[in-house]
Amino acid sequence: MDIDRLETPSLILDAVVMDHNIRRLQSRLRAANVPLRPHLKTSKCVQVARAIAAHGERGIAVSTLREAERFAAAGFRDILYAVVIAPDKLARAAALRAAGTELTLLIDGADIARRAAMAAARHGVELAVLIEVDVDGHRSGVDPAALEPLARLIASSPGLRLRGIASHAGSAYDCRGRDGIARVAERERVLMIGAARLLRDSGLPCEVVSVGSTPTAIAAESFAGITEVRAGVFVFNDLMQAQLGVCAFEDIALGVLCSVIGHHRAGDRLIVDAGWSALSQDSLLEGEARIFGRLCAADGRLLPDLAVTLLNQEHGIVTHLAGRPLAAREFPVGTKLRVLPVHACATASMHDGYQVLEDGVLAERWPRFGGWAP
Amino acid sequence: MDIDRLETPSLILDAVVMDHNIRRLQSRLRAANVPLRPHLKTSKCVQVARAIAAHGERGIAVSTLREAERFAAAGFRDILYAVVIAPDKLARAAALRAAGTELTLLIDGADIARRAAMAAARHGVELAVLIEVDVDGHRSGVDPAALEPLARLIASSPGLRLRGIASHAGSAYDCRGRDGIARVAERERVLMIGAARLLRDSGLPCEVVSVGSTPTAIAAESFAGITEVRAGVFVFNDLMQAQLGVCAFEDIALGVLCSVIGHHRAGDRLIVDAGWSALSQDSLLEGEARIFGRLCAADGRLLPDLAVTLLNQEHGIVTHLAGRPLAAREFPVGTKLRVLPVHACATASMHDGYQVLEDGVLAERWPRFGGWAP
Repeated sequence: MDIDRLETPSLILDAVVMDHNIRRLQSRLRAANVPLRPHLKTSKCVQVARAIAAHGERGIAVSTLREAERFAAAGFRDILYAVVIAPDKLARAAALRAAGTELTLLIDGADIARRAAMAAARHGVELAVLIEVDVDGHRSGVDPAALEPLARLIASSPGLRLRGIASHAGSAYDCRGRDGIARVAERERVLMIGAARLLRDSGLPCEVVSVGSTPTAIAAESFAGITEVRAGVFVFNDLMQAQLGVCAFEDIALGVLCSVIGHHRAGDRLIVDAGWSALSQDSLLEGEARIFGRLCAADGRLLPDLAVTLLNQEHGIVTHLAGRPLAAREFPVGTKLRVLPVHACATASMHDGYQVLEDGVLAERWPRFGGWAP
Repeated sequence: MDIDRLETPSLILDAVVMDHNIRRLQSRLRAANVPLRPHLKTSKCVQVARAIAAHGERGIAVSTLREAERFAAAGFRDILYAVVIAPDKLARAAALRAAGTELTLLIDGADIARRAAMAAARHGVELAVLIEVDVDGHRSGVDPAALEPLARLIASSPGLRLRGIASHAGSAYDCRGRDGIARVAERERVLMIGAARLLRDSGLPCEVVSVGSTPTAIAAESFAGITEVRAGVFVFNDLMQAQLGVCAFEDIALGVLCSVIGHHRAGDRLIVDAGWSALSQDSLLEGEARIFGRLCAADGRLLPDLAVTLLNQEHGIVTHLAGRPLAAREFPVGTKLRVLPVHACATASMHDGYQVLEDGVLAERWPRFGGWAP
């Protein structure tokens, strides 16, 4: 089917660009001899997971137990649930483990460690655990100074198996440019190999040293001592990654096809049928303008300086960033445009499937899922 | 079931508060002798639609053709598709019309009017039309000065039936306090009754004069000359409506139940398992703080000054707005909290159903839908 015949708004995935993105990160990590553990929260799609696994990856990371269950049902066995588990989810995690999934949990405190040990005993399983280490004060994770006592507690808890440590240097997103990100990645690496050494020197197990984010995976200069790299957004890329300097606009595999439905009477705004319900509300600053997406023609050709600058539920307002008029003649009602997402995870989460483009032709529709419940 | 046994995150709807909200707006509009046309884009839920219709409403407004189709299938017949229609959706609209739904479309330009007339002829139906009038330069709609020629074009197009005019005073959301909103509503009313008079004086039909938004519906002082009021958010309410001064925190019927999953080592932040994937990224300014939700205990009791101030996909960061410490003792891991949404439409859109609370007890689960395709 021709892309122009899709009803709007629709989420479009360019499979050629996606494959390029996958190969790019995988070659990089292979050269550094460290495996990639793709974070599938970005796509929540079995077909995307298989496209990554086709290049040889085995383990995956997920952000919800629903993802863990769906990907386990699709044949993935080595799954890291990369969010510190809430107590009320332990029974569900134990059930996955009992069914044979090699599920590893993230833990960052003594309370949840004790409750995990109780759940393991109650359900008669062994729960594999990584300790989340806070490397930059950004979010969750244990203070490195408190790591050893927590590791000792976990290692001595029947039913828990300590596998190692994990971190996420979220502060990479505060950087501009690859050099800054590379420094964040190197600080994370040094801290994590120090933490691993501390555990091993104390006779505690630490087979896994897991780090990751797309920017640090792309910009880091060394992975020595790291046993796996997690990254999610790399598979699609987005305007945030482009602004960080870790991809180009042409590397963005995702777009929202929309239609022009009107023109503001001031002559400087197009109205399109992609609002926040199709794009999400993630935004970034381009100079002084807050933007919610950049515009391409339906065929993917960039329309420089056109951006979505305002959103309602089903309306997007498109303006020229230099304030030029947008003529109805040039963009008549019904014109199809493609919006490049600010944040691929967020934009994808507003849709229940991907219209997959192979060499400019719509080939398939791949379903995606959201939600949390079993 | 007890609310404390729900797995988190979950979207909770307090049916008692919702019923209060419905009755409140309906009594107000009944006293003014103007019917309410509820905008169902907020709930996208047949059970919520029926709860409103139980109080006597007949017509509804929707923001997508999927909503129109789902609500038509559930027995609603008088449906206003309240977004200017894109050309590629005309065939679908004609099919709904052919199947007996009294669907009315919104049009704001000659191009789309001509294409609608062609679609009507092609599908052998009559398409009912309101002209969207731009009352405040906010978004879409025809310049009032260009209304008459467009009305004449539509009235003279075989296959189109001009029913009247509609407006949405989006600028009400830029106000602080009811007085400012009441002034916006009065300006909209005066402009719309003037526009209606212009059409009628020219012998053009204008049986419908449709205005609406939750803030103006609650704050307007007169509806004289208006034939229907559209409002959506009123059914749930949210922090944005509270900040505008048109509801109190106790009138917010929606909340996201979450669990505490950690404590930041600085001692001033809780980490909960409701990120943007559960709350949306809609935010508002409280003083100088940007917040993504306010916190209640699981039972709905407000925890003053606690707010979600940072979001990742599955993580929310809760801080005290006055910077006080948040003790792990007071909020141990596993504590259930309820987040009041900034924008009910956006928060609800992140979930596929409502856990319905009747007098504090979970009574039912009502499904909701998203998306656009047939």
